[in-house]
Amino acid sequence: MERNNLKSISKKGRFLILAYDHGMEHGTADFNQENINPEKVLSLADSGYFTGIALQKGVAERYYQPGKNKAPLIIKLNGKTNLLDEEPYSPQLCQVDEAISLGAKAVGYTVYVGSKHEKKMMSQFAKIGREADQAGIPLIGWMYPRGKAVKGKEYSREILSYAARLALEMGAEVAKLPYTGDPNSFSWVIKAAGRLKVTVQGGPKTDKKDFFGLAEEIMTAGADGLIVGRNVWQADDPLEVAKKLNEIVFNF
Amino acid sequence: MERNNLKSISKKGRFLILAYDHGMEHGTADFNQENINPEKVLSLADSGYFTGIALQKGVAERYYQPGKNKAPLIIKLNGKTNLLDEEPYSPQLCQVDEAISLGAKAVGYTVYVGSKHEKKMMSQFAKIGREADQAGIPLIGWMYPRGKAVKGKEYSREILSYAARLALEMGAEVAKLPYTGDPNSFSWVIKAAGRLKVTVQGGPKTDKKDFFGLAEEIMTAGADGLIVGRNVWQADDPLEVAKKLNEIVFNF
Amino acid sequence: MERNNLKSISKKGRFLILAYDHGMEHGTADFNQENINPEKVLSLADSGYFTGIALQKGVAERYYQPGKNKAPLIIKLNGKTNLLDEEPYSPQLCQVDEAISLGAKAVGYTVYVGSKHEKKMMSQFAKIGREADQAGIPLIGWMYPRGKAVKGKEYSREILSYAARLALEMGAEVAKLPYTGDPNSFSWVIKAAGRLKVTVQGGPKTDKKDFFGLAEEIMTAGADGLIVGRNVWQADDPLEVAKKLNEIVFNF
Amino acid sequence: MERNNLKSISKKGRFLILAYDHGMEHGTADFNQENINPEKVLSLADSGYFTGIALQKGVAERYYQPGKNKAPLIIKLNGKTNLLDEEPYSPQLCQVDEAISLGAKAVGYTVYVGSKHEKKMMSQFAKIGREADQAGIPLIGWMYPRGKAVKGKEYSREILSYAARLALEMGAEVAKLPYTGDPNSFSWVIKAAGRLKVTVQGGPKTDKKDFFGLAEEIMTAGADGLIVGRNVWQADDPLEVAKKLNEIVFNF
Amino acid sequence: MERNNLKSISKKGRFLILAYDHGMEHGTADFNQENINPEKVLSLADSGYFTGIALQKGVAERYYQPGKNKAPLIIKLNGKTNLLDEEPYSPQLCQVDEAISLGAKAVGYTVYVGSKHEKKMMSQFAKIGREADQAGIPLIGWMYPRGKAVKGKEYSREILSYAARLALEMGAEVAKLPYTGDPNSFSWVIKAAGRLKVTVQGGPKTDKKDFFGLAEEIMTAGADGLIVGRNVWQADDPLEVAKKLNEIVFNF
Repeated sequence: MERNNLKSISKKGRFLILAYDHGMEHGTADFNQENINPEKVLSLADSGYFTGIALQKGVAERYYQPGKNKAPLIIKLNGKTNLLDEEPYSPQLCQVDEAISLGAKAVGYTVYVGSKHEKKMMSQFAKIGREADQAGIPLIGWMYPRGKAVKGKEYSREILSYAARLALEMGAEVAKLPYTGDPNSFSWVIKAAGRLKVTVQGGPKTDKKDFFGLAEEIMTAGADGLIVGRNVWQADDPLEVAKKLNEIVFNF
Repeated sequence: MERNNLKSISKKGRFLILAYDHGMEHGTADFNQENINPEKVLSLADSGYFTGIALQKGVAERYYQPGKNKAPLIIKLNGKTNLLDEEPYSPQLCQVDEAISLGAKAVGYTVYVGSKHEKKMMSQFAKIGREADQAGIPLIGWMYPRGKAVKGKEYSREILSYAARLALEMGAEVAKLPYTGDPNSFSWVIKAAGRLKVTVQGGPKTDKKDFFGLAEEIMTAGADGLIVGRNVWQADDPLEVAKKLNEIVFNF
Repeated sequence: MERNNLKSISKKGRFLILAYDHGMEHGTADFNQENINPEKVLSLADSGYFTGIALQKGVAERYYQPGKNKAPLIIKLNGKTNLLDEEPYSPQLCQVDEAISLGAKAVGYTVYVGSKHEKKMMSQFAKIGREADQAGIPLIGWMYPRGKAVKGKEYSREILSYAARLALEMGAEVAKLPYTGDPNSFSWVIKAAGRLKVTVQGGPKTDKKDFFGLAEEIMTAGADGLIVGRNVWQADDPLEVAKKLNEIVFNF
Repeated sequence: MERNNLKSISKKGRFLILAYDHGMEHGTADFNQENINPEKVLSLADSGYFTGIALQKGVAERYYQPGKNKAPLIIKLNGKTNLLDEEPYSPQLCQVDEAISLGAKAVGYTVYVGSKHEKKMMSQFAKIGREADQAGIPLIGWMYPRGKAVKGKEYSREILSYAARLALEMGAEVAKLPYTGDPNSFSWVIKAAGRLKVTVQGGPKTDKKDFFGLAEEIMTAGADGLIVGRNVWQADDPLEVAKKLNEIVFNF
Repeated sequence: MERNNLKSISKKGRFLILAYDHGMEHGTADFNQENINPEKVLSLADSGYFTGIALQKGVAERYYQPGKNKAPLIIKLNGKTNLLDEEPYSPQLCQVDEAISLGAKAVGYTVYVGSKHEKKMMSQFAKIGREADQAGIPLIGWMYPRGKAVKGKEYSREILSYAARLALEMGAEVAKLPYTGDPNSFSWVIKAAGRLKVTVQGGPKTDKKDFFGLAEEIMTAGADGLIVGRNVWQADDPLEVAKKLNEIVFNF
């Protein structure tokens, strides 16, 4: 019972989404004089290479113009700072209908799989899943293994296939996951996700050549797309990187 | 004051329900390349041998088609992962009306009897019982003794009869319980349940012959049916197992 | 400003109520093959000797028939198991309007006076008091001193008079209390309760003769009635015990 | 922007309020065979010497008759027992509209200034302030310094001026405070309260002559009145004490 | 997508706001016989030198007259005392619509960035942001780094730029921040804030000459204004200080 609503944030069933919520999650350490400016990153998102841009509500409120900006808007509904050294919990900061009023075509929510606060996030995730469903927009699960219980297994086949399945069982339409590191184990993760679309996160800035190679490997392993941030807007030539990723994801 | 609503998930007053929420409760370790696919397990559920299929809402959303699938749908309203080593608590992930909108003919909810978080689950269970009542569908209590307070007594006559009675006193219509291990003690559990229907869980995959023997013993002891999962869909010949269980439960 | 609503659960201003929520509070250890069956105990309640029967909502749902059963129904709105060794808290499991829809003429709620969780129960009790008031039915306070703070003083004049007064100040119409052990101290408890009706709990099964003697002493001390359970339905001749208690309470 | 609503619980801008919620706060130790009876204390309140009587909702429900009782009713909205040795928190037991339906002309709420649970009480106090405002009745802040953080400073100029100011900043109309012990420091407390009316609590029973002397000193220091309990209804001649206090407060 | 609503609390895009919530935050130690009186401080606010006055709701209720007072009203929606030595949390005390009914043209809310209770404040802040938005008034984020996690870094470029960005990502329209101490690092803070207006707090009373020098430096560094309190109303000549600050902020 797949729904049409995924079409507004994908192309040919594939996803290439630019993420830019690092100001909340990491502070300003990720930024330089250029990419600290949301206008610059939004202009990159509008290049035509992306099927969506993921923002916190505040940045969307001040910068995103539904009629004018081209990249479909995805609002990250929860978020936290990295200041506290604790089992992670990310509180909801924006409601589904609020996101829609800002022009969102999809919403995202992070579940820290394995955290002591997992249950609070699972409840909230499931509630949001229903609201998004009723509103006719997809929920993307940012599924991140974290906390003592999964320490050292954050990239394992076991835990990432669990995270993918959890997103399916809880009612997401898309999962964003880390990559296991090899196509073989990742194909099990994709199997676990069933009819869910599986996208892979970019992670910290990597050598460009390695990053493209990895992107190809991930797509070959069967992923439905990528959600990238730093590897694009931290690059010397963001547009070139975006173009190349677009080729990898869509012309594959 | 028994209600007709049990008829939609039973036959001749007996229950044989296929459970398939292991992806949330246990991760993907229970699965192989076949049974990791919900389509395969739903097709098994539709074989005609079962009086219901128990799913988390996400799997129902993406796979279950009310008009097309034959096995009546039972939505497990709460769930948790097995990643955390703690006194268990299983948060509610789906509402009663949401379950009904997905086509559910009954809802299930796990109470970890003896857990430090027992009270939260009791409150939620009782609330759901009322909502299900008002909606005219039955609530099945997944009654599992767990936690330090009942350590080593999870299969005892004392604790399982308590769990059964608790389900009755809180307003369930069906209880799903582990088996005590012998018919004599289990008949006390059934007595404690009063007018409640008592079903027994299948548990981890067991030698087939032993499992059938156990199923017969449980039915002889007076149970109203079985709720099974791994012993069916992990079998080499799931349909044969389903057929045999159907004979045990209904032609008894 | 006494209200007429007490008339439906009393006779000549006196109360003799049969309690049967032990399946939730104590498990099945209190029961034998007869009294584990709610039908048997309801039939006893309907003997004409009692002014009410106190049940959890689930037992009422499956067994109590408003038109047919004679003993007025009292729903215990909260309850807990005895599995956990902790400062007691008893969560609300049934709403006032739900109780009424089951046929209840009064509701009961336990406050563990002196427990660390006392405040949660006080808030809930006061809220229920208002709802019961608006619905025109009485709230009976099961006032039980419990927890480290009152250890060893559970039957003292000091603590029981406090418990009685608390029920008055919080808005109950009837208090159910343990007996202090002597008429002199208990008359202070009754004074503290003011216009509240004071009933005394039966407690664990006692030698019959002693129990009747105690019942007479309690009534002589000024109590308005008794709420009894095990001393009646655990007796070899429950009807005889009921009859005798009825004489003690009403022909006094 | 002073409001007329203070007129219903004051005379010539002065307050003399009889408090009688000790049954909840202290148990029955404060009482004797006379004053344990709310009728007696209500009759004292109706003597004409008082501008109000402060009760918990339960006592008001059973004893206070809006048309008949003369002393204006003030409902204490929160309360607790003294059984637990802990940082104090006093939960809300009665709603503003409920108090009004009982005939209340004002409501009271205790904030334990300095308690670890201060924040919960501050939130609740502010919420009640608004509700009282909308209903057109005053909120009286029972401002009591308590807890480890203010240990030994409960009567200090520093902490009591803080408590008074807090009541003002949170939206009360009247503050009830302990007395600092000397007029000089207390005049700073009154300054801190600004346009708020300042009343002083009576405290434990004191030698009568000393108590009258203290009352005069407090009024001389600039207080707007007294809220008294034990020093009146524990006296051998409560009416005489009431008469004398009335002279001190109003003919001053 | 800047909104017109900032105009009501600014002039030429600049802010000079007088803060007077110290009675709640610090007690009466900040006050003398003059400035303890809200009338005096309101009269100062009305001097024409300020674009707003920030008060707790209680002080506004008793003193601020929408038609008469000239300085636009800003209600601080949360607040706490300084009595407890703990990771700070400041509970909400006033609702957005309540603030508006008192005449507010903007609302403020403190987030203790880095506190263990950060998440609770972030949720509440985001919720208020939406309500303020719907009501058409700005939310000013009092962004204060506090708690063990940021100990010693409260004035660092890293943490203050994080705090500024957080305010932007969560949907504030103005941020109130401490000053880093030098224009170079502060310009990064301003960059991080993007389209958010950045105001700087005055802090404890400083030598007047130093304070004016600092104010000029802050404005030169690119700030949009100042929110000051003690340095003005604790001064010997508050009006002179206000006049001078007005020159610094607006004729810059």
